[in-house]
Amino acid sequence: MTIDPRDPVAVAQGLIACESVTPAEGGALALIEALLTPLGFVVDRPVFSAEGTPDVENLYARRGSGAAFVFAGHTDVVPVGDVARWTQGPFSGAVVDGQVFGRGAVDMKGAIACMIAGVARSDAETPVAFLITGDEEGPAVNGTAKLLDWASKRGERFSACLLGEPTNPDALGDEIKVGRRGSHSGTLVIRGVQGHVAYPDRADNPIRRLGPALAALMDEPLDQGTEHFQPSNLEVVGVESGAGAFNVIPGDATARFNVRYNDRHDARGLEALIRGRLDAALGAGTYELAFEQNTGDAFLTPPGPFVDLVAAAIEAETGRRPALTTGGGTSDARFIKSYCPVVEFGLVGRTMHQVDERVSVADLETLTRIYQRVLAAVATKDA
Amino acid sequence: MTIDPRDPVAVAQGLIACESVTPAEGGALALIEALLTPLGFVVDRPVFSAEGTPDVENLYARRGSGAAFVFAGHTDVVPVGDVARWTQGPFSGAVVDGQVFGRGAVDMKGAIACMIAGVARSDAETPVAFLITGDEEGPAVNGTAKLLDWASKRGERFSACLLGEPTNPDALGDEIKVGRRGSHSGTLVIRGVQGHVAYPDRADNPIRRLGPALAALMDEPLDQGTEHFQPSNLEVVGVESGAGAFNVIPGDATARFNVRYNDRHDARGLEALIRGRLDAALGAGTYELAFEQNTGDAFLTPPGPFVDLVAAAIEAETGRRPALTTGGGTSDARFIKSYCPVVEFGLVGRTMHQVDERVSVADLETLTRIYQRVLAAVATKDA
Ligand SMILES: [Zn+2]
Ligand SMILES: [Zn+2]
Repeated sequence: MTIDPRDPVAVAQGLIACESVTPAEGGALALIEALLTPLGFVVDRPVFSAEGTPDVENLYARRGSGAAFVFAGHTDVVPVGDVARWTQGPFSGAVVDGQVFGRGAVDMKGAIACMIAGVARSDAETPVAFLITGDEEGPAVNGTAKLLDWASKRGERFSACLLGEPTNPDALGDEIKVGRRGSHSGTLVIRGVQGHVAYPDRADNPIRRLGPALAALMDEPLDQGTEHFQPSNLEVVGVESGAGAFNVIPGDATARFNVRYNDRHDARGLEALIRGRLDAALGAGTYELAFEQNTGDAFLTPPGPFVDLVAAAIEAETGRRPALTTGGGTSDARFIKSYCPVVEFGLVGRTMHQVDERVSVADLETLTRIYQRVLAAVATKDA
Repeated sequence: MTIDPRDPVAVAQGLIACESVTPAEGGALALIEALLTPLGFVVDRPVFSAEGTPDVENLYARRGSGAAFVFAGHTDVVPVGDVARWTQGPFSGAVVDGQVFGRGAVDMKGAIACMIAGVARSDAETPVAFLITGDEEGPAVNGTAKLLDWASKRGERFSACLLGEPTNPDALGDEIKVGRRGSHSGTLVIRGVQGHVAYPDRADNPIRRLGPALAALMDEPLDQGTEHFQPSNLEVVGVESGAGAFNVIPGDATARFNVRYNDRHDARGLEALIRGRLDAALGAGTYELAFEQNTGDAFLTPPGPFVDLVAAAIEAETGRRPALTTGGGTSDARFIKSYCPVVEFGLVGRTMHQVDERVSVADLETLTRIYQRVLAAVATKDA
């Protein structure tokens, strides 16, 4: 082991070199174990399984006793895409013009490197845990949810959690995520009667009702937003009808949609609202509607001591007061929120999931100091 | 040859036994040649080819000199579908309860049998031709259009044509088709900007414009119909957008449509009309629109001596005055109309293209007498 755990650039490069595209572990968790063990952590790497999904390895590390402050994250990364378009090798960790290149640089091996470096530099005597999954970018079935359940059954308790997703749109210090919207998906099927296009009277073209259905789903806002959340939003993400022939009126039409919803709704209420709008537009009983893939309702870690502590650490290092936001996609915070207060703060997400994903050396250093400050403040508060 | 050409049931059974699913000849044209030659016809069976389509055999037979009265039709048939659902073999020609069963019984081997029997029974001394294709149900590329061109180049001239498609919805005598609508097809593509569903501001969902586009295409009638034609009609026959994921706003949306149009429009005018409506709904230049598969504009053989003669023959045998209609799908009449007046009258179409396609023995006999009467009336008129 030649990597200095206090150097976030070296740790990030070590992690980027591990080809850990979901569900591959790629050596990333082994490297974290090797770095944390000398720092006094007891490390477990449980593997979880579920039918129809690949087995996934995860990591739980803990130092000290009692309710632990948790650093959470994932080492798995999305595929590199068109490797020819990368200016640096996607697993190279090459530093060019002060930027570390590689898949996972910001999402979120870089942040994990800062967590490790922050802990390595810290002399705060507070119990700390790492909750690292290898299944965040994939189905997320054998990851954080199961790891939390596994830890909980072992008696592990948590005081608060900082999840290192890339929360900053443009510059370090932009935003802390203090909650996430819920996500819910549905499929609408409008049945008609198939027939020959020359005899429309003998058919019933379901596409004639698709336009009003799309309007019912999308035209009227679901709400105007709430104190901590932007307005809920429904997008129809797919429509499908017809088999390709120009002479056949199709027998049914399908629309698939996704809703990102705030704390004004829960899943059941949202379903009723959508059903009511479709009933008004199409008539009750004239369509089929099924919901799936609900991520759970919106949640919020309300402004308070923990959020203040994180915000203060960020302001101390960046000079900027981060906004408290709840926008964007879902994250594993939706699982963690049932165990302890959780907020998210990491690197700048601009290049995440893209070719030439990269993070500045300066940001890695600053984020390390922020995490170290958070740890010190938690220790002070606990003491 | 044991088939009596004056017996339409025997001839129909002989033709049904030939497995002539497009593009197979199946022995059907050979049988027609064998039946017509002893009746004094000179028979040719030209094969036409085109790249990307199978070669297809056709038949042209002529008796007498000068402009010929033409019986036109096709011996190819559509596939039998689920053979297990047929109560009689689809190529058996079995007679059960006075009905001859088999693929092509009404569309249109039965009608060709009546033409042959009508000619065999007739002593009218008028020049007669048979124009029979094996490519009507398929791409229709190597069929009637090329056969007409081939005959025309040989100096063949026609006085009028009776095409034996099944024109009667319910009972023999319902309808003569005196024209056909045009058919034109188009594909509309609405471009947007693909993105993640959690960040709709960074995407442009083309499905939001699909609803208004569908309304622009379908809501307003194209016309109110004309003297001989029903209103033109546009059906959207397919829509497609999205790849199946619930978290991706798609980059484009496609709608495919078909128009059946009357003599108020031609293809170019129709294209301009549709483009104008989409411009108004979506904005000019915000979409892509391409047209294809135009069958030619609507055509009409106006009421007059030839139509009267056919209608009178039908009334004499059925006691019913047929309606003159132009509805339904296209037919090879669209090619014939450029060479001579053409009308269509055949059997009852109710079972065409279906399992247990069948024709009554009584209808075969009546249609034979109608065709014989037409021939006699043409001869009288010519004389
Ligand atoms: Zn991530
Ligand atoms: Zn036909």
